Amino acid sequence: MHNLTQKPLHKLLTLIEHKELRVESVIEAYYQRIQQREDEVNAWQYLRSYDDYLAHYLAHKTYYEQSILKGLPFGVKDVIDTMDMPTTLGANIYQNRQPLQDAVSVNLLKHYGGIVMGKTVTTSFAFFSPGVTRNPKKLDCTPGGSSSGSAAAVSDGMIPFALGTQTAASVIRPASYCGCIGYVGTHGEFSMRNIQPLAQSLDSLGILTQSVEDVMLIRDLLLMRPKTELQPIDLSELNIGICDGEMLGEIDLAMQRVFLTWIESLRSQGINCVHLPNAFDIKKIAEQHYFIMAFEVARNLSIEYFNGEIDALLADLIETGLTFSYKEYCTMKQDLCEQKEALKQWRGQNNITAITAPSAPGVAPTGIQHTGKPFMSRPWQALGFPVITLPIAEDQLLPLGVQLIGLEGDDRLLNLAYSLFDKKKEI
Amino acid sequence: MHNLTQKPLHKLLTLIEHKELRVESVIEAYYQRIQQREDEVNAWQYLRSYDDYLAHYLAHKTYYEQSILKGLPFGVKDVIDTMDMPTTLGANIYQNRQPLQDAVSVNLLKHYGGIVMGKTVTTSFAFFSPGVTRNPKKLDCTPGGSSSGSAAAVSDGMIPFALGTQTAASVIRPASYCGCIGYVGTHGEFSMRNIQPLAQSLDSLGILTQSVEDVMLIRDLLLMRPKTELQPIDLSELNIGICDGEMLGEIDLAMQRVFLTWIESLRSQGINCVHLPNAFDIKKIAEQHYFIMAFEVARNLSIEYFNGEIDALLADLIETGLTFSYKEYCTMKQDLCEQKEALKQWRGQNNITAITAPSAPGVAPTGIQHTGKPFMSRPWQALGFPVITLPIAEDQLLPLGVQLIGLEGDDRLLNLAYSLFDKKKEI
Repeated sequence: MHNLTQKPLHKLLTLIEHKELRVESVIEAYYQRIQQREDEVNAWQYLRSYDDYLAHYLAHKTYYEQSILKGLPFGVKDVIDTMDMPTTLGANIYQNRQPLQDAVSVNLLKHYGGIVMGKTVTTSFAFFSPGVTRNPKKLDCTPGGSSSGSAAAVSDGMIPFALGTQTAASVIRPASYCGCIGYVGTHGEFSMRNIQPLAQSLDSLGILTQSVEDVMLIRDLLLMRPKTELQPIDLSELNIGICDGEMLGEIDLAMQRVFLTWIESLRSQGINCVHLPNAFDIKKIAEQHYFIMAFEVARNLSIEYFNGEIDALLADLIETGLTFSYKEYCTMKQDLCEQKEALKQWRGQNNITAITAPSAPGVAPTGIQHTGKPFMSRPWQALGFPVITLPIAEDQLLPLGVQLIGLEGDDRLLNLAYSLFDKKKEI
Repeated sequence: MHNLTQKPLHKLLTLIEHKELRVESVIEAYYQRIQQREDEVNAWQYLRSYDDYLAHYLAHKTYYEQSILKGLPFGVKDVIDTMDMPTTLGANIYQNRQPLQDAVSVNLLKHYGGIVMGKTVTTSFAFFSPGVTRNPKKLDCTPGGSSSGSAAAVSDGMIPFALGTQTAASVIRPASYCGCIGYVGTHGEFSMRNIQPLAQSLDSLGILTQSVEDVMLIRDLLLMRPKTELQPIDLSELNIGICDGEMLGEIDLAMQRVFLTWIESLRSQGINCVHLPNAFDIKKIAEQHYFIMAFEVARNLSIEYFNGEIDALLADLIETGLTFSYKEYCTMKQDLCEQKEALKQWRGQNNITAITAPSAPGVAPTGIQHTGKPFMSRPWQALGFPVITLPIAEDQLLPLGVQLIGLEGDDRLLNLAYSLFDKKKEI
């Protein structure tokens, strides 16, 4: 049965379409996997019972049979509102918070035939204070955060895909630590309606899956557009920018080695790899990301801050954010805008399809009291570019991911990831 | 008593501070005004009762006495969530919608001692289908929309200030039609948490008041910063850009005349007025605004659209928006970004403090089945610049406003408006 839960979503859908697989069997397989593993992994904040899921599926079987997602399950990070399950934001004060309405993203996936299996564990308010989730690949390690439960559940085969959100590194880092694919759209790509904001100019919806093809499938549904066929790219005509992350912080040896091998493999496939010029001060952009996040979080979570309902890590961020003036904030946004333009110009002049970088500074650190360092995602998140992380290696059981950073609304990013990942593994 | 309700907020607060006025008298005066007028104006979707208000005020009198806003009332547009009153979005399906939490903006104003008097009428989903509100200056005319009730109530002296939102022209136009001041912050200036989105890259919170000083007072509170003293500007050193609106659509004769007089008066005060170069295709920006709005609204209101719960005007917008591809949307946003940079460069080179334009194509049209034309606001809203409208004239009882369009986060905009309006009227 676990064989079934290791299959990517699009394969399952094809088998179901061809009547080679019953939806009921898939549902059962996922619930079995959860039963075996959840006591140790703790991916779920709220889980729909098997009986309830099956009864709902059977009651609407005709609808699901005609739908795109066929009644298969997905997980929803617990900062994304759901009308039939509580949405706690991972915060003590919101343990009984029951939203009035689904987030648009959830509603769309339900409309297209997905069934919410449950809410996945998030760090508190999608910031840094961790929940109870463990890394499914090595239980004494963090799964990363803030989309901890979504990454753990998808990587562990409990669900075929999940929704997450990213403000700093909250999709890319946990996907890298747990070993699944994580995609963060261009800023503004998906509706954020009924998702509680952390920092609105940075918050993005994310998709966690087992294949690039699954990302495109879910992305098309969230964009309410017909299916896009992924096109393998001619790699010999390609230019890719390299950011090895050294200028952002310390990269561990395992990741350094994996990233070098990755670049070598890109080159061996004929890709022209160009280092990001030093003129681009990526570290400064990462610092600006922190500043903008602190400023916006301080304003968005003022209710809870005034009421003293916020954990120490978040209170610290808010207090920092409150010391920044609106004028400084505007100046920084303008500066960021100029750097973005310069970077886009460089990319245009050199016909750079994507920039690649390590997805995290290394493997998941030991301990679940923290979620690891977010610096490898800050610059791209500040710039609003779409990003996908691919789980390309392991070191002593723990996964390592590399990022591909695209341009706004540019489908070449997913075509490239498809060529470099799905096509190599034929998944 | 009506004398009292015509005073701007900061004057009332000073009188209260100096013990020359009791808060209870002000509350009573506003409720009297509402009692006299509401049957005809219909500004309120939900109104807290006088007894309830007074009981609440008296129960927390010590808190309010030490607060900045002293327990004075304000109105909240009915797309902005309130935890103790329904928030209907002006939509039939949401007549009983009771949010879990206040919007951050509402919570902050309550924290600083304001009391929500009620919810003001909005057009359906803050788009174009009007509510029941009439123009308080001439009852057979539209108050404009979508912040119809907020503009009508402030202009009619039912409340000292109100919150509104603007996606196209939803604050500036009703303020101009009803005769109050309307301010729309730089895009992203205020937290939008728990305000239902229409089009997230355009939606802005707005403040409606009787004086520029009141705008700054409320703005400081929403930005959680200490009071900013407005500084009169040396007008003889000033450059102002002119956009007479002709390239956007038909401007009626009354507005043409008022706008010409306005420019003459600026010049007579020593201000150097420069026409916006024709190179800036403002009409194209207005068209892009429509495109971006349609695209985003289609994605944000997909729940209600699928369920057939949306009025014909809005369904039409959504159907148009669904025909636009994500790629087209991204290309348009990029183009807009470039035009914004060019416009900012021109403003920088010519040291332009603000651009001025008519706030609407003319006086409020007759009839309340529509809310007038939004084209005078589209370009600035698409560019995300802060805007303030000043009620500078009347034509046969109906007010006419002019806009000043500033630069992101630039406090000179409000200093200029203060010099040109408050200082002239000494309010």
